[in-house]
Amino acid sequence: MDTAYRPTPRTTPTRYRERATYDRRAVHAILDEALICHLGYLSAGGPVVLPTTHARLDETLYLHGSTGGGPMLAAREAPAGLEVCVTATLVDALVLARSAMHHSVNFRSVVARGAARVVDDPAEKLRALRSLLDHIRPGRADDCRMPTGRELAATGVLALDLAEVSAKVRTGEPVDDPEDQALQHWAGLVPLRLTPGPPVPAADLDPAVPVPPYLA
Amino acid sequence: MDTAYRPTPRTTPTRYRERATYDRRAVHAILDEALICHLGYLSAGGPVVLPTTHARLDETLYLHGSTGGGPMLAAREAPAGLEVCVTATLVDALVLARSAMHHSVNFRSVVARGAARVVDDPAEKLRALRSLLDHIRPGRADDCRMPTGRELAATGVLALDLAEVSAKVRTGEPVDDPEDQALQHWAGLVPLRLTPGPPVPAADLDPAVPVPPYLA
Repeated sequence: MDTAYRPTPRTTPTRYRERATYDRRAVHAILDEALICHLGYLSAGGPVVLPTTHARLDETLYLHGSTGGGPMLAAREAPAGLEVCVTATLVDALVLARSAMHHSVNFRSVVARGAARVVDDPAEKLRALRSLLDHIRPGRADDCRMPTGRELAATGVLALDLAEVSAKVRTGEPVDDPEDQALQHWAGLVPLRLTPGPPVPAADLDPAVPVPPYLA
Repeated sequence: MDTAYRPTPRTTPTRYRERATYDRRAVHAILDEALICHLGYLSAGGPVVLPTTHARLDETLYLHGSTGGGPMLAAREAPAGLEVCVTATLVDALVLARSAMHHSVNFRSVVARGAARVVDDPAEKLRALRSLLDHIRPGRADDCRMPTGRELAATGVLALDLAEVSAKVRTGEPVDDPEDQALQHWAGLVPLRLTPGPPVPAADLDPAVPVPPYLA
């Protein structure tokens, strides 16, 4: 398999092309780190963007939905698959420049396009749900009650093959024009990080159940 | 003005309706706290979702773009405005239940739909850019070099009236079925927070420039 996705006109940005990458490992790392993504699809001819959870398994991106949710209903009505754009974004820093113009954000994002299919096969659906659980924290799938057949049927999962995919990354310092560098406005980065706090046990959890190692 | 947005069929979720709210103050708080949003629009008939920065000014949502970027080009070609869906999502906690089925995420999201217009009036554009700067950190607009006329012309801004808007919020504990409560899997919340680190001055910043109070 190629180490990079093949660019298409749809995955070639019109601006800041130097920030685009098609490297599979870079794309995978962003998708794997992002806790949620934003799923775009058409409903009654208009764009809809909804947050959802996802997990990558090799070159398939699984998206979690409920069977009665908008994307699942739309996908059921699209026999050739539901045309989607899935975007996952990590914000790494605020970029403050001396000039208003050059303010920016350091980020890493992935945009994946294609036709998403409804996962109906119970074995694939279970695999997808395990990936979604392990995406929360690796190890979680082995440490919870697996779905019953009825629960599995009540859970919606969409699958998107990762084929038309690009990542976009901005890193590093603010870039001010030379004539602005002597201005006395503070310039630099404010790093940002999605930080987990200490786990809070459910009120009705048996106090004898310890915090599992994958949460510590 | 009503204290709530008027629900429409497009802003009524098909699932978990009890999590939906149309309260203006709740919507504003989410938009104001979210650093970025995801902008959905149609390009060549297909959905596209891109991350961008935004700022709310009363009941207008301003979106930052570059003049050559996809959404700006599409908006220029849509005289009645570009049909968009703008979604901002804050992730508050991982929700771990004893059963796979009841895993979830505590989140707050806003979905705003409508026709976005290109902001061409220089005075409104400047107001929008000041809002975008103050959205990074309140006070920043007064502490940087304002754009020149040429820079202003090179910056793209879209405006969306907040009219067809809803928020969706999940809070609180995992909800397991009664028969699962005695299972010995850990259940509870892992709180998440986008945390700023200490500001990192630009390598070429005059060391005499102090970190401004709004970043401390």
